Amino acid sequence: MHFELFPKDTYVSRRRKLSELVGSGLILLMGNEDAAMNYADNCYPFRQDSSFLYYFGLDLTGVAGIIDVDSGREILFGDDPGIDFIIWTGTLPTMAEMAGEVGVITTRPYADLGKLLSEAAGSGRTIHYLPPYRNANLLKLSEWLRQPVAAIKAGHSLSLVRSVIHQRSHKEPREVDAIEKAVSISADMHFTAMHQARPGMKEYELASKVQEVSHAAGGRLSYPIILTVNGHILHNHYYGNTLLDGQMVLVDAGAEESMHYAGDLTRTFPVGRRFSNQQREIYEIVLSSLEKATQMLAPGVRFIDVHARACEELLTGLKAIGLFKGDPAEGVEAGAHTLFFQCGLGHMMGLDVHDMEDLGEQYVGYTEQLGKRKDFGWKSLRLGRELEPGYVLTVEPGIYMIPELMDRWKAENKLASFINYDQLEAYRNFSGIRIENNFLITEDGYHRFGKYLPSGVDEIEAIREEYLAGMA
Amino acid sequence: MHFELFPKDTYVSRRRKLSELVGSGLILLMGNEDAAMNYADNCYPFRQDSSFLYYFGLDLTGVAGIIDVDSGREILFGDDPGIDFIIWTGTLPTMAEMAGEVGVITTRPYADLGKLLSEAAGSGRTIHYLPPYRNANLLKLSEWLRQPVAAIKAGHSLSLVRSVIHQRSHKEPREVDAIEKAVSISADMHFTAMHQARPGMKEYELASKVQEVSHAAGGRLSYPIILTVNGHILHNHYYGNTLLDGQMVLVDAGAEESMHYAGDLTRTFPVGRRFSNQQREIYEIVLSSLEKATQMLAPGVRFIDVHARACEELLTGLKAIGLFKGDPAEGVEAGAHTLFFQCGLGHMMGLDVHDMEDLGEQYVGYTEQLGKRKDFGWKSLRLGRELEPGYVLTVEPGIYMIPELMDRWKAENKLASFINYDQLEAYRNFSGIRIENNFLITEDGYHRFGKYLPSGVDEIEAIREEYLAGMA
Repeated sequence: MHFELFPKDTYVSRRRKLSELVGSGLILLMGNEDAAMNYADNCYPFRQDSSFLYYFGLDLTGVAGIIDVDSGREILFGDDPGIDFIIWTGTLPTMAEMAGEVGVITTRPYADLGKLLSEAAGSGRTIHYLPPYRNANLLKLSEWLRQPVAAIKAGHSLSLVRSVIHQRSHKEPREVDAIEKAVSISADMHFTAMHQARPGMKEYELASKVQEVSHAAGGRLSYPIILTVNGHILHNHYYGNTLLDGQMVLVDAGAEESMHYAGDLTRTFPVGRRFSNQQREIYEIVLSSLEKATQMLAPGVRFIDVHARACEELLTGLKAIGLFKGDPAEGVEAGAHTLFFQCGLGHMMGLDVHDMEDLGEQYVGYTEQLGKRKDFGWKSLRLGRELEPGYVLTVEPGIYMIPELMDRWKAENKLASFINYDQLEAYRNFSGIRIENNFLITEDGYHRFGKYLPSGVDEIEAIREEYLAGMA
Repeated sequence: MHFELFPKDTYVSRRRKLSELVGSGLILLMGNEDAAMNYADNCYPFRQDSSFLYYFGLDLTGVAGIIDVDSGREILFGDDPGIDFIIWTGTLPTMAEMAGEVGVITTRPYADLGKLLSEAAGSGRTIHYLPPYRNANLLKLSEWLRQPVAAIKAGHSLSLVRSVIHQRSHKEPREVDAIEKAVSISADMHFTAMHQARPGMKEYELASKVQEVSHAAGGRLSYPIILTVNGHILHNHYYGNTLLDGQMVLVDAGAEESMHYAGDLTRTFPVGRRFSNQQREIYEIVLSSLEKATQMLAPGVRFIDVHARACEELLTGLKAIGLFKGDPAEGVEAGAHTLFFQCGLGHMMGLDVHDMEDLGEQYVGYTEQLGKRKDFGWKSLRLGRELEPGYVLTVEPGIYMIPELMDRWKAENKLASFINYDQLEAYRNFSGIRIENNFLITEDGYHRFGKYLPSGVDEIEAIREEYLAGMA
């Protein structure tokens, strides 16, 4: 088989539990298809749907699974390879053999799926499906269930969504092992960046080396690399700048290991041998925020409170260097931190780097009692709910000096009782700093994932010093 | 600007010519959107539509262009970045500025496009659009033109398709330069593979190094790398095997340079220092086929005849080693070569590695007089038509020993007067060999693209010898 699986029982018991949680009806879990890049047959690298992987495991195109909760029957739909497939793509085990590996007895040709669903819908049965994020699956559902795409988008099963989130949020020991591996590969990607950056290099040259590490380990990237001298642009995927001495490089990069579990780490380091004084001051503030947040990680703690505490720590540090004035806690209450930290402190991580984001952030990261805020900064916090053992998440504070945002706030004199706008000018071209680690919530606290990756100023400068001295 | 453009006049004159060719109506050219990988916001690397790039140049999401052939008016649709975009993605020039760079005066918000098209369709104007290969664009067209997706799929403009193919098939000097660059980067990818392969390595380890070369040059892959010890699987994207001494590695890999022109090269070389005798014999046959085909490249020659000649050369060589019997030309006529060479000899190449495949192979590679054949082997020949100066294409003969196909033919005693089935058994686990170069058709012959990349047995063995001796 060209993909890895957990032992059969893993999938059997996950599906059994899912059936219990959903209670009745037909559960449909669709696999993904190849996605066209610049024409139908030049595809992006195949990525299976994460929920399909979780319950049915098969890491290939052209498959879907049905769980009939009422009868207990499970069916995997897919076709055995014909001679054309063998010539172009190679041999595969039969569908029956592959289904057997994940504990499913019944298989049927893929073409039967539409008919089965049309009939089930016609006879009034509830068909539970997840929100389709790929248009190919949206179009199939629209055809099979004979509803316009808008109705299909609105018609996903909230009961299924909540049940899948409940299961996937609590990582099993095997999943924790896979994430440990993914984060360690991710750490190697960052070691490579820290060891090989040199002034004069293009961002894409360094990014190509970072990417190589994930692929050479038998995996891939869990998201497009952010590797930039403009760290204040949060999701920057432009790599055309030249690294200059005096600048910092922000690298936000993670590996997806061979079973598709993600890592997601960020480090920021000087292009030259040392941080400037200004850079070091801000760096230490971000690092202190990361440490304070990390210390709070434990079951029962709301992540929205961790976020607030991390923001308070950022403002405390910014006060010490004269950019913020007043009480840090009050500043956070008023939203003053969002001039510097416009996004959220972290998110769930697992088979997706933003785990289960396709199922809806409000269900993954919040509860009926705790809704997501809608105001600037807070609206970008993907996780707010009380932490539970088995949750896996990132913590990634940062300080981002965004000239357009600074100008906009200053023009409005926004929160002027908290912000020293005059002092801020010296940071107009500062760019940004982010530091990010990944954690498992345990019964009594947390576990930091992956091999040790330096984040202290001295450690990072020592690595840069050693490498650049070797180059000289 | 975060992307490169040709001089403004390039786009202006391409659009003027397109208007002349199409003659009347509204021409719509849609850009691509980001494509979801495992949830909406974790996207595959953005790839702009090639025809949009060709006529409007803008390499970003959220844009589309209209050419009103009747009034001569051109409009680019797209939105200026707001503050959220700036925070997450960075600043961009305004739409008006970017449109100016490609010679378009009028810009309008993207939301206006649907209204304009609905009105134009309502008033009975012809709207020319290309076949949508991305579901996102299919769904938009379905909404704007108020037609079901099946009708949209069937409703693309053949006049626009033929006109675009006519223009894009004849490469301009600037395009030739870009392809030269892409093929030279591709050659570097193959040098890396030949220099760094060693017994015991995983395919994915070597593939990661090959990929790095394309990214480090500021580009990307023009298609997913094929790097395999099972070269007989034509489009093999599994990289999990270990390279073993005695095996060969087939590497089919190409770069897309920064303006998105493709290279597409293949080499096959031994994992160890030397080819085995069996491997060398087959290799020389494939190389001879490549040479014979190359010598034929010139304006006025039908590529289907080059394909036939290459196949004849393969059978001539296979006769010499006892796998084929009878007259090679008659063998090709009967299809005997398709047991060994199941695909086509080459294809057009440009902004797409299979250039313009989204527009329809029958129009790109064939003519009204010369239709595509439907029989095994021939049906996979993407290019058959008479060559013209400015065409850019690949030549890629191969010999592939596919056990399932051998067994099937032998069981049917298929073409037994041509095939020595008994002798063939010794090649059951041979795998496959392909050698591929890229060419421009000139006024009086051809130009081979890119820096020199060895294909001779002695040259390749010398590289392997040198590298592995250094390792020892």
